[in-house]
Amino acid sequence: MTTTATTARERMLLAKDAARSIGLLGDAEKRDALLAIADAIEAAAADIVAANGEDLRRGSESGLSVALQDRLRLDEPRVAALAAAVREIAALPDPVGRVIDERTLDNGVSLTKVSVPFGVVGSIYEARPNVTVDIAALALRSGNAVVLRGGTAAELTNAALVRAMRGALGERGIDPEAIQTVDDFGRDGARELMHARGIVDVLVPRGSAQLIETVVTESSVPVIETGAGVVHIVLDESAPLEWARDIVVNAKTQRPSVCNAVETVLVHRAAAERLVGPVVAALQAGGVTVHGDPTVARLAAGVTPATDEDWATEYLSLDLAMRVVDDLDDALDHIRRYSTHHTESIITQDAASEARFLAEVDSAVVMANASTRFTDGGEFGFGAEVGISTQKLHARGPMGLAELTSSKWLARGSGQVRA
Amino acid sequence: MTTTATTARERMLLAKDAARSIGLLGDAEKRDALLAIADAIEAAAADIVAANGEDLRRGSESGLSVALQDRLRLDEPRVAALAAAVREIAALPDPVGRVIDERTLDNGVSLTKVSVPFGVVGSIYEARPNVTVDIAALALRSGNAVVLRGGTAAELTNAALVRAMRGALGERGIDPEAIQTVDDFGRDGARELMHARGIVDVLVPRGSAQLIETVVTESSVPVIETGAGVVHIVLDESAPLEWARDIVVNAKTQRPSVCNAVETVLVHRAAAERLVGPVVAALQAGGVTVHGDPTVARLAAGVTPATDEDWATEYLSLDLAMRVVDDLDDALDHIRRYSTHHTESIITQDAASEARFLAEVDSAVVMANASTRFTDGGEFGFGAEVGISTQKLHARGPMGLAELTSSKWLARGSGQVRA
Repeated sequence: MTTTATTARERMLLAKDAARSIGLLGDAEKRDALLAIADAIEAAAADIVAANGEDLRRGSESGLSVALQDRLRLDEPRVAALAAAVREIAALPDPVGRVIDERTLDNGVSLTKVSVPFGVVGSIYEARPNVTVDIAALALRSGNAVVLRGGTAAELTNAALVRAMRGALGERGIDPEAIQTVDDFGRDGARELMHARGIVDVLVPRGSAQLIETVVTESSVPVIETGAGVVHIVLDESAPLEWARDIVVNAKTQRPSVCNAVETVLVHRAAAERLVGPVVAALQAGGVTVHGDPTVARLAAGVTPATDEDWATEYLSLDLAMRVVDDLDDALDHIRRYSTHHTESIITQDAASEARFLAEVDSAVVMANASTRFTDGGEFGFGAEVGISTQKLHARGPMGLAELTSSKWLARGSGQVRA
Repeated sequence: MTTTATTARERMLLAKDAARSIGLLGDAEKRDALLAIADAIEAAAADIVAANGEDLRRGSESGLSVALQDRLRLDEPRVAALAAAVREIAALPDPVGRVIDERTLDNGVSLTKVSVPFGVVGSIYEARPNVTVDIAALALRSGNAVVLRGGTAAELTNAALVRAMRGALGERGIDPEAIQTVDDFGRDGARELMHARGIVDVLVPRGSAQLIETVVTESSVPVIETGAGVVHIVLDESAPLEWARDIVVNAKTQRPSVCNAVETVLVHRAAAERLVGPVVAALQAGGVTVHGDPTVARLAAGVTPATDEDWATEYLSLDLAMRVVDDLDDALDHIRRYSTHHTESIITQDAASEARFLAEVDSAVVMANASTRFTDGGEFGFGAEVGISTQKLHARGPMGLAELTSSKWLARGSGQVRA
């Protein structure tokens, strides 16, 4: 199912037009459409893998790193996993039509605020074919059309995925123009998407800090920023060693490449002698390189000296920065300066420290005595994750389907006028 | 109470710093601070009126229109009205600390999503001194610091108002840097405000469509768009004459200069003979110039021929465009093309038409059988209005104090790690 549109703008206008009928689909229709998409992706597995092979061949020729090639690679089991993810999204409750507020004016006019689809959701991301399927499925489940821009390295793979998804919609009598890609327009496609104000209702960038910064700065379409995580854990004076060690090791090593992994640990000076040695040893046993300030280096063996740059770094690897702070105020100052407002956690048994930390840290998720790895849509019970918002407008923290909806007020009267 | 900051950026950084303590104020402290501000504005009335006189003198010399001079003018009763508005905002419930969502994970970690202040709210607006006081009071009531950019024509007036408000905060031991103006930096002040990403959390432009367009296009700070209202009323085939006439006349003439006033009336062809004559006559009796298509001109006397430009015009005056449409689909097409997504209303006794209109019109407020003038924070029971959002992100429709807050998740555990 291919489109006749020949420019990125034409495709976006087709998506906007399709959004009207997509937005009126009922719960069952949307669910069935997603199940059909899952089937179509599985049925097209051979085509998808072949297209992916060609992307990989080109990538290898053009010097794409082995890590990026691995991220890009699809085989039959990975294609099956994409289809399974779509089926999971199909099973989620419909976020559209929820009554958010209700009131009746004195004159009898009734007001109802209901959740409605945005209309057209755009996404700019890097060469991860799973995002192509994820975002399209999440957008459709919430009644939106979608415009995808997924990176040149995955162009043929994304095209094969989009072809399969559009075909499934068309076969069910649903407007296939609801799923669009502008990959084949290269950087111009991304640029047009960022300036499609009035056509695209919201733009969700996913990928590196640099990609997100570019989108946030350049886009005139409203953006939901899913930013980097320079995530902190504070070991307060009263932190139990066992909690401190288990949570820091878990938050760093359970999956170091993701944004909710801890990057910096701040240790209260009064607890440093007690905690630094065993926590560093446990991290090192888990393969972590600890970048520490002079006090940390004095209290533990094998510590790499930290520079100012370390405090601002999202390693996304088995590296961790550790610093001894004078007290909770000093820890809060450090976090204010270096946090990306994603997630921070304090390990403490002092109720006053816990209360201050929860109140004063200005991040999407602020924790006491838990691993920062819990900042996740799946863990929060949302069933699927659109991303983790680090901005304060519209959505903050893990985003589920509800965050892909807007609202409108419905007013019903019987001839009332304003006095 | 003047500031030592010498650049717009320094002032915004002072506001960001002040936001920390402002955000932790309790309900009573914020209320008392606003009452002190109201008193201080009244006490400074003579200074404020004198500063305003100088602004008016300069405006008159530089050719400021009489209408703009009137909008700018403050006398003692108008200053008293400003103080009264602050007292009303003081009396509103605190929007901070509200529990939005709660859940407990299987592992015992408890999650609470609470409303929190944004931090720093910026506003760019035109020469209306009342906005200076309104936005500052609304921002403080919701625990935010504020940076104001109110237009060169009102510079001295705004400075006197800001001085009085900052003085009131200082006397109560609250950081006066929470209220900042960048008026004295002219266009550079506005530009710095629009690019203060990471310092200013949200920007609310208020004023002309052109001002809002500039802010939306140029700002890298997230914007809440309070846009223009090309507002439509559809007179369906079954519209009762009395409702049609009363609602259209009310929506146009009760206060023509505001964004929720109707600009275009679309009349179903099957009802045109019955409705156009009496509705046009009633409008004309109210002093309205009707710009009509040829059918309207044929059915009523004294109609000015409408051009394509009329359909896209927000008159904000005693002018109204009227067009006969073939049916509801034709009306929906017209609205899709020309609406600014603010408010539209249908007058009908047909349940199917009403249901289609409410479902299919993509506007902040969609009405049946009520005057579009009800789209208003006061009418909706919000007590005070930050503006009417015409965007879909974060806030849509009339915004109250709740829309000046963000949220954060608080997680409380006892050593849990992710499996």
